Amino acid sequence: MPTHYNQLAGRNLDRLSGLSDGVFAFAMTVLVLDLRPPAAAAIHSEAALWQALVALSPRLITWLMSMLTLGIFWIGQQTHHDRLAHSDRAYSWLQMTFLITVTLVPFSTALLAEFIEYRIALLIYWLNILLIGLTLLASTYRARHFGLLRKDASPEGGRALLRRIYIGQALYAFGAALCVFSTYWSIGFIVAVQLNYAIGPRFRPFTWL
Amino acid sequence: MPTHYNQLAGRNLDRLSGLSDGVFAFAMTVLVLDLRPPAAAAIHSEAALWQALVALSPRLITWLMSMLTLGIFWIGQQTHHDRLAHSDRAYSWLQMTFLITVTLVPFSTALLAEFIEYRIALLIYWLNILLIGLTLLASTYRARHFGLLRKDASPEGGRALLRRIYIGQALYAFGAALCVFSTYWSIGFIVAVQLNYAIGPRFRPFTWL
Amino acid sequence: MPTHYNQLAGRNLDRLSGLSDGVFAFAMTVLVLDLRPPAAAAIHSEAALWQALVALSPRLITWLMSMLTLGIFWIGQQTHHDRLAHSDRAYSWLQMTFLITVTLVPFSTALLAEFIEYRIALLIYWLNILLIGLTLLASTYRARHFGLLRKDASPEGGRALLRRIYIGQALYAFGAALCVFSTYWSIGFIVAVQLNYAIGPRFRPFTWL
Amino acid sequence: MPTHYNQLAGRNLDRLSGLSDGVFAFAMTVLVLDLRPPAAAAIHSEAALWQALVALSPRLITWLMSMLTLGIFWIGQQTHHDRLAHSDRAYSWLQMTFLITVTLVPFSTALLAEFIEYRIALLIYWLNILLIGLTLLASTYRARHFGLLRKDASPEGGRALLRRIYIGQALYAFGAALCVFSTYWSIGFIVAVQLNYAIGPRFRPFTWL
Repeated sequence: MPTHYNQLAGRNLDRLSGLSDGVFAFAMTVLVLDLRPPAAAAIHSEAALWQALVALSPRLITWLMSMLTLGIFWIGQQTHHDRLAHSDRAYSWLQMTFLITVTLVPFSTALLAEFIEYRIALLIYWLNILLIGLTLLASTYRARHFGLLRKDASPEGGRALLRRIYIGQALYAFGAALCVFSTYWSIGFIVAVQLNYAIGPRFRPFTWL
Repeated sequence: MPTHYNQLAGRNLDRLSGLSDGVFAFAMTVLVLDLRPPAAAAIHSEAALWQALVALSPRLITWLMSMLTLGIFWIGQQTHHDRLAHSDRAYSWLQMTFLITVTLVPFSTALLAEFIEYRIALLIYWLNILLIGLTLLASTYRARHFGLLRKDASPEGGRALLRRIYIGQALYAFGAALCVFSTYWSIGFIVAVQLNYAIGPRFRPFTWL
Repeated sequence: MPTHYNQLAGRNLDRLSGLSDGVFAFAMTVLVLDLRPPAAAAIHSEAALWQALVALSPRLITWLMSMLTLGIFWIGQQTHHDRLAHSDRAYSWLQMTFLITVTLVPFSTALLAEFIEYRIALLIYWLNILLIGLTLLASTYRARHFGLLRKDASPEGGRALLRRIYIGQALYAFGAALCVFSTYWSIGFIVAVQLNYAIGPRFRPFTWL
Repeated sequence: MPTHYNQLAGRNLDRLSGLSDGVFAFAMTVLVLDLRPPAAAAIHSEAALWQALVALSPRLITWLMSMLTLGIFWIGQQTHHDRLAHSDRAYSWLQMTFLITVTLVPFSTALLAEFIEYRIALLIYWLNILLIGLTLLASTYRARHFGLLRKDASPEGGRALLRRIYIGQALYAFGAALCVFSTYWSIGFIVAVQLNYAIGPRFRPFTWL
C-alpha cells in the first residue's frame, strides 16, 4: 500500500502556532481599526472633540469584550497546544476551522457595535463564541483519542481543560439568553464573566470557575 | 573564485515558515474584511437586520471556498516543507512566488463575489488556484533535484505529494470547465472537492483521492 | 485537590513572542496606511504633486513619533522577556493587556494627526504611552515576585530595566505637561527624548538616561 | 558601575526575525489591497468586465515591481541575519529603521501607481529603495565592527553581501536617472534588474552581478 498524503500532512505544531499567532495578532489590530477618530471638519473646539470622543465610548465596550474573547481563546488554545507531541492532518483542519471562527470576531463585533440593541446581532456574536469553543473542544477530543498528546500530559490536566470549556460555554449561553430582557444585560454579564477569567484567581469572586 | 551572494542567500527554512504563516494569517483575516455589516441607517427592525444579513449570504460561499483554498495550500506547503533539510536562493524565490499567488486570493475572491455569474471572474479565480499549485509543484522539483531534501524524506512520500497536486489540479480544472454550463456548477463542484479534502478520510466519499 | 486550569494555562513564552511580533508588525504597517497618496484627479503637474506631498508632511511627525514609540517598547518588552524562564497565566494576561495598549497606537496617532493642536488629543496619546509603560511595569513585577525569572537573570539587570521605565515615563509625563504652552512643545520634546533613546549611547547628549 | 539598560537590550535575533517576517508578510498583502475589483454597478457584460480588468493592468506593473523589491530585500536581510551570533541594541534599531522603510513600500507604490508619469513619484519610490539599502548596509557595518558575527561567518561572504548591495543600488540609481527621458524607462529598467536578481544564475543574462 503506497504512502498516503494524509499520513504525512499537517504534522508541524510550530507552523500551527505561527499561523495562530498571526491570526490573533491581526484580529486584535483589526478590531481597533473600527475605532475611527472623528472627522476634523466637524470639530472646532476642545469641548467638541471631547464630546465626539465620548460619543465613541459605546464602541469601547464591544471592543473590550472582543479583546477579552480573543485573549481568553488565545491562552486557551495555547494551553491545549502545549500538551501535544505533534499534530496530524485532521487536527490541523480542526484548528484551521478554529482560526476561521477567530477571524470572524472582527465581523461579529462590528455588527454588534452597529446594532447593539438588536437581539440578532447579539445572538450572532454569541454564536461566534460558541463556534470558537466547539472547534477547540473538537480539537481536544481529536488530540486525546488519536494519540497526539505528549507522554507527560496528565489526564487530570485534560479534564481541567474540558471543565473550563464546558463551564465557560454554559456561562456564555446563559449570558446570551439574558437578551430576552435586554442585550445590555447579556453584554454586561458576558464582560463580567470574561473579566473574572482574565483578572484571575487572586481578585476573582468565583474561584470555583 | 570568490564566494557568490547566491551561494549564501535564502537558506533559512524558519524564516520561510515565518513569512508564510504571516501571509496566510493575513490573507485569512483580510477575506473577512469584505463581509461588512449592513449600514445602521437603513435598518429599523430585527426583521430588516435579518434580511440584510441573509442578503449577505451569497458572499459566504465565496468566502468559504477561499478559506478552504487557503487551508488546503497552507497544509500542503507545510507538508512539503517538513521534508526539507534547508532552503536555497532559488527555492526561496519559488516560494516567494507561491506566497505572492496566495496574497492574490483576497483579490480574486472579491472579484468573484462581486461578479459571481461572470465566467471571466470564475476563470481568474481558477487561474489563481492553478498558479498556487504550479509554484508549489516547481518548489517540489527544485527541492528534489537540488539536494534540499532531508536524508530521511522517503521518495514514496514525495510521490504521494506530487500525486495530490496533480489530482487536485485536475479536479479544479474540471470544475472550472463546468462554467460552460454555469459558474454556480463550477463553484459547487470546487467547494465539494475542497470539503472532501478538508473533512478527510473518515467521512469522505472519494477515499482514493 | 484537582489540577486547576490556571496552573496549566499560558506558560509558553514562544507563543507570547509570536503574538507580540505579529501585533507590533501589524501596528507598524497600519500606521503607514494613514499616509494616503493624494487623489490623482486634483493633481495636474509635478509642482502640484510636490505641494500635495508637502501638505502631507505634518503627518510625518506623528507617524515618526509613533514608530519610535513602537520601536522603543518592542525592544523594551523583548529585553524583559529574555530574562524569563517561563510565563504563567497572569503574566500572559498582563502581556495581553500590554499588547492591547500597543494596538491602540494607530488610533491615538490618527487622532493626534487629525487634531494636532488639541490638548485632548495629545493627552490621549500620552495616556496611551503611559498605559504601555504601566502594563510593562506590572509584567516586570509579576515576573520578579512569582518566580518566572531565569536563574541567571541578574537583580542588577532588573533594576536597570525598572530605572529605564521610571525615567522614560517621567520624561514623557513632563513632555505631556508642556502642552500647557503648546502641543507642539510636547511633541517636539517627546520626539527628542525618543530619538535620544533610539540613536543610542554614542551620539546621545544625555548618556545618564 | 551599574548594569546599563543598553547592555541588555535588543539581543534576541529570533524576535527580530519574527518582527521582520510579520512586516514583510503584511506589506506583501497590503500591496494587493490596492488592486480593487471594479464596481459591479458599472459592469453589465463579460466584455465590460474584461475591459475593466485590462484597465487595471497598469497597476500590475508597479505591484510586480514592489513584490520583487520586497522579495529581494527579505532574502537579503535573511542572508545577512544568518551570519550573526546575536544582536545588540544599536543593531536592533538599525533593523527597526530598515523595517520602517519596508513599511513605506505600499505607500510609495500606491503613489507611483497613481502618478506613474510623474518624476517626483518615481524619485520617491527610488528614495524608498535607497533607504532600504542604506539601512541594510548600516546594519552590516554594525554587525561586522561590533562583534555580532558568528565565528564561522567568512569575511569572503561578507564581501559578497556588500558587493551585492553596492552593485544593486548603483543599478537602481541608474534606473532612477533614466526618468530624465521617461518614468517608463526607469520602471522598465528597474523591473529588468529585479527579475535578473529573482530568476537567478541559470537563466540570467548578467551572471557577473
